Amino acid sequence: MSQEEALVLRSDRTDGLTTLTLNRPNAFNSLSKDLLSALQTELDAIAASETVRVVVISGAGKAFCSGHDLKEMRANHSKAYMQALFKQCGELMLTITRLPQPVIARVHGIATAAGCQLVSMCDLAVAADVAKFAVSGINVGLFCSTPAVGLARNLGRKAALEMLLTGDFIDAMEAKAKGLVNRVVPLDALDAEIERLAGSILAKSAVAIKTGKGMFYQQLEMGLREAYAYAAEVMACNMMSEDAGEGIDAFMQKRKPVYSGR
Amino acid sequence: MSQEEALVLRSDRTDGLTTLTLNRPNAFNSLSKDLLSALQTELDAIAASETVRVVVISGAGKAFCSGHDLKEMRANHSKAYMQALFKQCGELMLTITRLPQPVIARVHGIATAAGCQLVSMCDLAVAADVAKFAVSGINVGLFCSTPAVGLARNLGRKAALEMLLTGDFIDAMEAKAKGLVNRVVPLDALDAEIERLAGSILAKSAVAIKTGKGMFYQQLEMGLREAYAYAAEVMACNMMSEDAGEGIDAFMQKRKPVYSGR
Amino acid sequence: MSQEEALVLRSDRTDGLTTLTLNRPNAFNSLSKDLLSALQTELDAIAASETVRVVVISGAGKAFCSGHDLKEMRANHSKAYMQALFKQCGELMLTITRLPQPVIARVHGIATAAGCQLVSMCDLAVAADVAKFAVSGINVGLFCSTPAVGLARNLGRKAALEMLLTGDFIDAMEAKAKGLVNRVVPLDALDAEIERLAGSILAKSAVAIKTGKGMFYQQLEMGLREAYAYAAEVMACNMMSEDAGEGIDAFMQKRKPVYSGR
Repeated sequence: MSQEEALVLRSDRTDGLTTLTLNRPNAFNSLSKDLLSALQTELDAIAASETVRVVVISGAGKAFCSGHDLKEMRANHSKAYMQALFKQCGELMLTITRLPQPVIARVHGIATAAGCQLVSMCDLAVAADVAKFAVSGINVGLFCSTPAVGLARNLGRKAALEMLLTGDFIDAMEAKAKGLVNRVVPLDALDAEIERLAGSILAKSAVAIKTGKGMFYQQLEMGLREAYAYAAEVMACNMMSEDAGEGIDAFMQKRKPVYSGR
Repeated sequence: MSQEEALVLRSDRTDGLTTLTLNRPNAFNSLSKDLLSALQTELDAIAASETVRVVVISGAGKAFCSGHDLKEMRANHSKAYMQALFKQCGELMLTITRLPQPVIARVHGIATAAGCQLVSMCDLAVAADVAKFAVSGINVGLFCSTPAVGLARNLGRKAALEMLLTGDFIDAMEAKAKGLVNRVVPLDALDAEIERLAGSILAKSAVAIKTGKGMFYQQLEMGLREAYAYAAEVMACNMMSEDAGEGIDAFMQKRKPVYSGR
Repeated sequence: MSQEEALVLRSDRTDGLTTLTLNRPNAFNSLSKDLLSALQTELDAIAASETVRVVVISGAGKAFCSGHDLKEMRANHSKAYMQALFKQCGELMLTITRLPQPVIARVHGIATAAGCQLVSMCDLAVAADVAKFAVSGINVGLFCSTPAVGLARNLGRKAALEMLLTGDFIDAMEAKAKGLVNRVVPLDALDAEIERLAGSILAKSAVAIKTGKGMFYQQLEMGLREAYAYAAEVMACNMMSEDAGEGIDAFMQKRKPVYSGR
């Protein structure tokens, strides 16, 4: 990351876990061009890393993320700027899906507009009970079109449309019931819950996790017959990995497996 | 509407809100050819209107809508008639999805077969707690194939198949949990809730709502990459609208926006 | 079935209902090659039957089904074997979807890995409250890729990914809330509930059920316009069946229909 990028995004590493913290607390972590660039740079580096195994996306200060930086957008009022901005943001979202490592959103406060989209595009999400979610662009005359892509792939269509057309907030428990987040815990238990979830994934075979995440999103866009043909091939390859051999042997010998990541 | 059509469908207009009321209470508002035609005529007129902003579909009498008119169907027993009938009904359902304005189902009583389909195809639905839902064609030897299209795009597949294979009713709370309706309120609070929901949309920018609804359904049928490319372009256009400029300025100046609809 | 197959799969017939019971209780009904073959043989025979109307898949002993037979897999460690195995299993799962008759999973105990996949691919599922579900391959270094195909078409994507990445169990009520099973009852009420559900389908027109099930899965893979065109044609044909005529006449005459299955 450049120095400017390092200011808006913190990256902390503990063993196989990297936590990326959106660090524009005074702007409710809105996704300025600098912050989008910093996230892209970090995720590209992580994608190439053999040692990072799980990524957590977190926010500094009161909010998780309030979406795009409206002030910056208004100061750059051209169609070319907007096209570049939404393209950049879309690329970032696709990068999360394509990242070999699972990405967990740690949602401790509000997640609005592209901030809500960010939650929807993470593989998993854990929210504090005080977190709130909205796609609020419609309140300023801007339908949350790119957030709709992620939202509609997490929620049922009527629930997604209601949020998009009204801009209304839903709370954390509703977000869980609707499929936007996996788990909801009290705020002071949020880090422990993230640690538990990340720890569960860290204990697994790296090659199996990486293979599986990629397969999951690809088969989602296939018809049933094609999806099965593809999944069967992926699973046969996975079964020939050292880790699967070790995992099954360990299971049959009632001992803990020792994975090599191959 | 023709005179016959006007008898089976009432259309009431209050400012930007048009309420279409299925008006065959003695036939539980079953969708006769006349009623289907009347709905098509009205919706086509609304699609071209600059002033109608939200549509509510409601039913007169005890039921919301009991589906096709079985008596009329039995009196016209030819394959050509059936093909024309289901084609006409399908076109009407697609018209709702393509309508620039959001359509809210106001479900105060039973919604069965194509009546349940009508709820599923509206963008939003508010039900009274006494409302009940079924795709009951299977009870008369007729699998609800066209209703299945809408139902399967609202509910999970096992829940949809259970309703289609058994013909069993679900109540309003179950319909909400399963994604068929957005909100459930006591019957005497139904109109106030509809007013609240419609009012929320009426307060938004017309151009943003219209852009967004169309975008929402189109991106649903795309893969993730294509959906993001499309949504980014739509959102850049939306951002260049007068309303988005006004909306964002008003937000930053902490005042209410005044939208022009452009 | 061959004699070997008959040992691992029981088939019981009562009127229109066939119950297939996975019968390797000491191996938690894991899907050995023999058991997969036996299921395929039985389902192919049922597909051609005019008299079998509903299929129930059940498990002998404590578990419903624990997935693939890991011991057998480890004893046959070649890529060609794995490709053949997962292809065979995928074909079996597709056979369930394509079977003219509805298939109900009767889940009385644990359903893990390909056992959980089996539940996901049945048209309907009824679980005992003590049943538990997991896609646990990841615990042995093997991401449940083929189970993911079925799971992701029953659950929301975040819920599916959480199960796939962690291998964690969910209980029966959670499985119901997430869309993996239709109904949950106490263990001692399971057979009565299966009988009730199967009985409801048995009382319907065979031609309508068969037409409808096939249509349902096909339209799921179509866009909205194509799905409506297809469903309209299917429904017109269904309407011209003897059963639909009888069903509607009986309804209008307030008597019970007598279906011929044509």
